[in-house]
Amino acid sequence: MGSTLIHPGPVRNKKHIMTHTVKMNLNCPMPKFDYDKITLGHGSGGLLTHRLLKSGVFDLFKNSMMDQQHDGASFEIQGRQAFSTDSYVVSPIFFPGGNIGDLAVNGTVNDLAMCGASAKYLSLSFIIEEGLTMESFWEILVSIKKAADKAGVMVVTGDTKVVEKGKGDQLFINTSGIGPIHPRAQIHHHRIEAGDSIVVSGNIATHGITIMSLRKGLGFETDVRSDTTNLNHTVIHLIDKFGEDIKFVRDPTRGGLASVLNEIAELTQLCYQLDQKSIPIDPQVEGACEMLGLDPLYVANEGVFVAVIKKEITGEFLDLLKRDERGRQAALIGEVNTSYPGKVILKSRIGGSRVVNYLTGEQLPRIC
Amino acid sequence: MGSTLIHPGPVRNKKHIMTHTVKMNLNCPMPKFDYDKITLGHGSGGLLTHRLLKSGVFDLFKNSMMDQQHDGASFEIQGRQAFSTDSYVVSPIFFPGGNIGDLAVNGTVNDLAMCGASAKYLSLSFIIEEGLTMESFWEILVSIKKAADKAGVMVVTGDTKVVEKGKGDQLFINTSGIGPIHPRAQIHHHRIEAGDSIVVSGNIATHGITIMSLRKGLGFETDVRSDTTNLNHTVIHLIDKFGEDIKFVRDPTRGGLASVLNEIAELTQLCYQLDQKSIPIDPQVEGACEMLGLDPLYVANEGVFVAVIKKEITGEFLDLLKRDERGRQAALIGEVNTSYPGKVILKSRIGGSRVVNYLTGEQLPRIC
Repeated sequence: MGSTLIHPGPVRNKKHIMTHTVKMNLNCPMPKFDYDKITLGHGSGGLLTHRLLKSGVFDLFKNSMMDQQHDGASFEIQGRQAFSTDSYVVSPIFFPGGNIGDLAVNGTVNDLAMCGASAKYLSLSFIIEEGLTMESFWEILVSIKKAADKAGVMVVTGDTKVVEKGKGDQLFINTSGIGPIHPRAQIHHHRIEAGDSIVVSGNIATHGITIMSLRKGLGFETDVRSDTTNLNHTVIHLIDKFGEDIKFVRDPTRGGLASVLNEIAELTQLCYQLDQKSIPIDPQVEGACEMLGLDPLYVANEGVFVAVIKKEITGEFLDLLKRDERGRQAALIGEVNTSYPGKVILKSRIGGSRVVNYLTGEQLPRIC
Repeated sequence: MGSTLIHPGPVRNKKHIMTHTVKMNLNCPMPKFDYDKITLGHGSGGLLTHRLLKSGVFDLFKNSMMDQQHDGASFEIQGRQAFSTDSYVVSPIFFPGGNIGDLAVNGTVNDLAMCGASAKYLSLSFIIEEGLTMESFWEILVSIKKAADKAGVMVVTGDTKVVEKGKGDQLFINTSGIGPIHPRAQIHHHRIEAGDSIVVSGNIATHGITIMSLRKGLGFETDVRSDTTNLNHTVIHLIDKFGEDIKFVRDPTRGGLASVLNEIAELTQLCYQLDQKSIPIDPQVEGACEMLGLDPLYVANEGVFVAVIKKEITGEFLDLLKRDERGRQAALIGEVNTSYPGKVILKSRIGGSRVVNYLTGEQLPRIC
């Protein structure tokens, strides 16, 4: 639609994110923007918004399905869907292994995957603090597009607000997503039984420690990289193969593995018995946890899921998962039993057992 | 689910917003919270989050459809849907006629309505600045619930993040919504033709002036109240009656009426001729605009829509709209013609005509 290319129209950014239809190379340099920093005017819905979007943002998020100047996207969908939302306030917004942009895409894609759903449509909403450099914003936009393409999800609608200096913190992002639930998915804690196996898909605590190691005043550095990634293809592949024998999956983000397991322990009134020595963790991450006095069981993950599965499929499940690049470090970490109803129990390396409780207070603020 | 009531489980707030099944009176006083202010711990996903949600928030958002501890909501959905998102950063968060909570519900409900859709499912995501009083938070939660009930939309999933003092501004809210598009809706600027009528549903510039009148240092007060309300029932009722004769509807929020009309003028390359004396505006609002040197055509609205309709239905359309409490001040404000392609032209009260351009820069930051 030629006129759209020339005149995308400015009332709300979101109605224009999708209107451009010119192919763009993701590795292209930053377009020439009128300004080197985001100003309040870029959130006005007026001419500055218009220029900002026209000068490259449309190109990046062009989307053949979308050529609407509506207040929202529209599409046909049928059947059982999952719908999820998350706001991302991670600080700093750039970190080894990713930034707030791909984190925001992966986080919501993964929330849907944990419902047994393939993310299909994503909304994207920015709250920008005045003064964010166009260079940072562009880098994040490109990461969002790359992460969305990798996950196979379409960004179909969006919004941009700008707040005054000191009223935000560079950039907050909300993503909401919707997608069809796999017909074989029967993921619900109700289905967990004594005897089931507890599996994690990879090394734990990596994302949390990556962020912590960047925070001022910690006095140490690691070369640990965030594990942020999309888990949808991995999880859907497993559901495809094992169906209802996968009883529960969850990505242990804020609050870590301990919080997820405490939650289902309470809900199921079963005992979740973990074997510390079998829980996969990178030695550097473990070292950092010791230095910081953090229990890795409470530290956030962004590219790992925990699954409770029927004992009989454990071997096959792990074999399949380990063949996936996202499951290389997958491990059986424990079992569900009835010994301490409603509790998470950790058998330590030296053999003793302890109760793993809920996280109290805030351990790692703004980790995601 | 008894156990859910006792143990909602804390990993992410959103997975718990929906888990309670005890009826609650919306006019009940604020529950006893453990804290009088939001702390970082309330965003941890740990025990504080758990307690916060347990102590009344579940009750408020209890939702018969939802009893899931998933990372998202799930539901059956069929056919053509609209999907929209918006983040709300209005400052101050409380204002005459509403607060950021009902604004956030109405805004997204209205965005869907402008696509011809009835909002059905809503996500709700908070970014709270540490120190927000529980009293303010509760008041906003109750407003959200009331606005959602009024609009007939279900809050089905949510998320809460907390940022440090000085890294946010009390409260930001994102709502994303999805709902079925009316089978008779054919709303697209492509369908606008010369001869069509331009109608607004009510007094313009009310919300923007309400917020401006509250801002520090303005040195004046009005008793104007924000027009924030849900327009979905009104718009769907009109679509039901007039179908494809309604060619375009849009709620002129940020950037006001001038920006919406400039956008479609550019897209359609038709001329949008307005008659100033027929544009409904409250005298106090008009007075405030004069004091502030603001053109009401650029000032934000939150409870008004502009429609471009087939000329032949204008009388009937206005009659029906005026019978709706949200359309009492509805008026025919102009017509589409070919005199100045791509332009919005205003015929002033004294008879002269001028071009109404895009808003340049930022007129009213953080109006929504």
